[in-house]
Amino acid sequence: MKFSELFVKTSREAPKSETARGARFLVQAGFVHKELAGVYDYLPFGLSVLEKIKNIIREELDKIGCQEVLLSTLQNPELWQKTDRWDIEKMDIWFKTELSSGGELGLAPTHEEPLTELMKSYIKSYKDLPVAAYQIQTKFRNELRAKSGIMRGREFIMKDLYSFSSTETEHEEFYHKTEQAYAKIYERLGIGDCTYQTFASGGVFAKYSHEFQTVVEVGEDTIWHNADWSVVLNEEVLQDEILENLGVKREELESTKAAEVGNIFTLKDKYSAPLGLEFTERDGTKHPVLMGCYGIGVSRLMGVIAEKFADTKGLIWPEAIAPFRYYLVGIGTEGVQKAAELYRGNENEILFDDRDLRPGEKFADAELIGIPYRIVVSGKTLENNEAEVTERKTGETKMVKLSDLTF
Amino acid sequence: MKFSELFVKTSREAPKSETARGARFLVQAGFVHKELAGVYDYLPFGLSVLEKIKNIIREELDKIGCQEVLLSTLQNPELWQKTDRWDIEKMDIWFKTELSSGGELGLAPTHEEPLTELMKSYIKSYKDLPVAAYQIQTKFRNELRAKSGIMRGREFIMKDLYSFSSTETEHEEFYHKTEQAYAKIYERLGIGDCTYQTFASGGVFAKYSHEFQTVVEVGEDTIWHNADWSVVLNEEVLQDEILENLGVKREELESTKAAEVGNIFTLKDKYSAPLGLEFTERDGTKHPVLMGCYGIGVSRLMGVIAEKFADTKGLIWPEAIAPFRYYLVGIGTEGVQKAAELYRGNENEILFDDRDLRPGEKFADAELIGIPYRIVVSGKTLENNEAEVTERKTGETKMVKLSDLTF
Repeated sequence: MKFSELFVKTSREAPKSETARGARFLVQAGFVHKELAGVYDYLPFGLSVLEKIKNIIREELDKIGCQEVLLSTLQNPELWQKTDRWDIEKMDIWFKTELSSGGELGLAPTHEEPLTELMKSYIKSYKDLPVAAYQIQTKFRNELRAKSGIMRGREFIMKDLYSFSSTETEHEEFYHKTEQAYAKIYERLGIGDCTYQTFASGGVFAKYSHEFQTVVEVGEDTIWHNADWSVVLNEEVLQDEILENLGVKREELESTKAAEVGNIFTLKDKYSAPLGLEFTERDGTKHPVLMGCYGIGVSRLMGVIAEKFADTKGLIWPEAIAPFRYYLVGIGTEGVQKAAELYRGNENEILFDDRDLRPGEKFADAELIGIPYRIVVSGKTLENNEAEVTERKTGETKMVKLSDLTF
Repeated sequence: MKFSELFVKTSREAPKSETARGARFLVQAGFVHKELAGVYDYLPFGLSVLEKIKNIIREELDKIGCQEVLLSTLQNPELWQKTDRWDIEKMDIWFKTELSSGGELGLAPTHEEPLTELMKSYIKSYKDLPVAAYQIQTKFRNELRAKSGIMRGREFIMKDLYSFSSTETEHEEFYHKTEQAYAKIYERLGIGDCTYQTFASGGVFAKYSHEFQTVVEVGEDTIWHNADWSVVLNEEVLQDEILENLGVKREELESTKAAEVGNIFTLKDKYSAPLGLEFTERDGTKHPVLMGCYGIGVSRLMGVIAEKFADTKGLIWPEAIAPFRYYLVGIGTEGVQKAAELYRGNENEILFDDRDLRPGEKFADAELIGIPYRIVVSGKTLENNEAEVTERKTGETKMVKLSDLTF
């Protein structure tokens, strides 16, 4: 894309309402626009990052046999009354609204109830199991305080996956496949080496649930880990009995700040029993379907990744999710002409800064936006048929023959 | 995809709550699931159709220089008070809700106000114009009565595009480009030859606005057209003065039922003036930006297309948006084995009905789901190294050499 054609403009001024560095840069670089506390719009760069994150998630979930659906936001109270989650005392994050024809509705903060109900049309027998369905959908949570930019919003985009199994073994097998798919997702997103599967409180359904936590300074959580990070746990489960279970001693553990980027839960029959999602076993007996749920905050991940890698000059995107791979600048008549040539045919990979600005301003925007590689061509670099290529992450510059540039 | 792996199952039973044929089949064939009147979930087949419609729209809008964004659902009343559209008396389709920290919010039924406000950060000068931004977003409209399946919903997916121009000429040029892009979109969707640009009431901002209407029996609108369909107008503008303007006589016109699948409006300064979206002219004077808005109901289109082409046996999808291009059935050991071979490597194009059912049941599902081509291989067809290929639309069957099958 040509920068001159983009309606969004970068800003040198830091927005007052954002405290974290990544959140500030996301606004300044024009990735997001704040509507209200915890409510953001996604501009072209931001939407591009979101879509790339979504596609990585989709690819890994499809590989383990999950099927994508899209459930509604508007929710029928009846379903949630059956599981005792409609009352604001039971679930205090509801946004509720009213039908003009009469009757209350809710805006889905999560989707266990409607998907469990929907599955009653399709799951009858053990032969129909296991199955798993997911969606990537906007969720609404009426948080008293929204904070950390897009890391904790009132309106946010989430991938939520639900599994349906006939036996514990079937459930555990799928749970394990999801653990592996999640690890793959974080690796492809560029945060594999700083994201850990942690033990978290599991409620009444399992000994533990699991979270995936990315080590980042502005994280809201504290995690504890041993020297080689082979055991990592959330602070809420830092109890003697649990430590003994896990075979670690408290004094071996160190703490660090982290942000949750995923969670996986064993639900057993928590939703299937009250909603009546049953299957018939080989012997003709009926049993509630065993469920699991598996979340990844998509817009949250974008926020965490922005915070994780930002430096004092701006954002730094991992290659797999950067809005563009290259930021192209031509200097001087000859440089601009060659840049236009390089750009042609590579419009999806290159953000071509064709604006009528000084090179220094363009370089500052390249750093602010955080495109992985900056390419500069000028009369001087062209003397040797070369371009100057600078990696945003390391700041390292090297001269590359034009014939060796591949987009 | 293998049918056996799909969690969705087809149903022979017509849902009582849907009256139109297409709407009934969408439920029976497992494309959608009704949550509430006017509120639907999209299952894997349905989501696939939606995504294909979205991508066709995206491609055509990107070609004319539009940029994609994603605006929030939750809306700040302040903006809508400035344009006098917050009061329920002024706009009666609001769903409203409340923040737990205090204050009312709305669920966006449309997005003129937030996008106009957002553009104030980026449009300052005539040099910044023209620009156009669109989104594909869920809209919420508190309709008193929802009807016609997914054709008129309370929660639905819409593409809304907004243009920003400095002069009438600039606006008209973009308006015209959109007309052409829309025609291209409907053509690619398979409804080009039954979709007409009509004159509709234009409010106070232009002589007419335009709609795009698809001729379909269950349509809610009545359109009037002359013999060669060169003049088509909505019933609401069937007035002597307008007919004279258009150079047609009432007695030349015939009426037919149609469904609106798009609309384009000149907004002038309706939103830019009250919200203060101004630009500076060459001479230093300031003027409100001239706007246009251009909608396409994405989930509505899926409903209209389902109704348009359905026959007594089920749905019939145009190739460009069918969830799969081929429905594959193997008969007998040899046929099943060959089918599995054909399937390999073509998983995205083929729905392979590998279920343990009689061929007749599979054929009925092939017709119900409406995949464009059914391929059958059996011991008999294999004697001549052939497959039987049946086109869903025409019912025509021909024998095709296996070596000539390309997916």
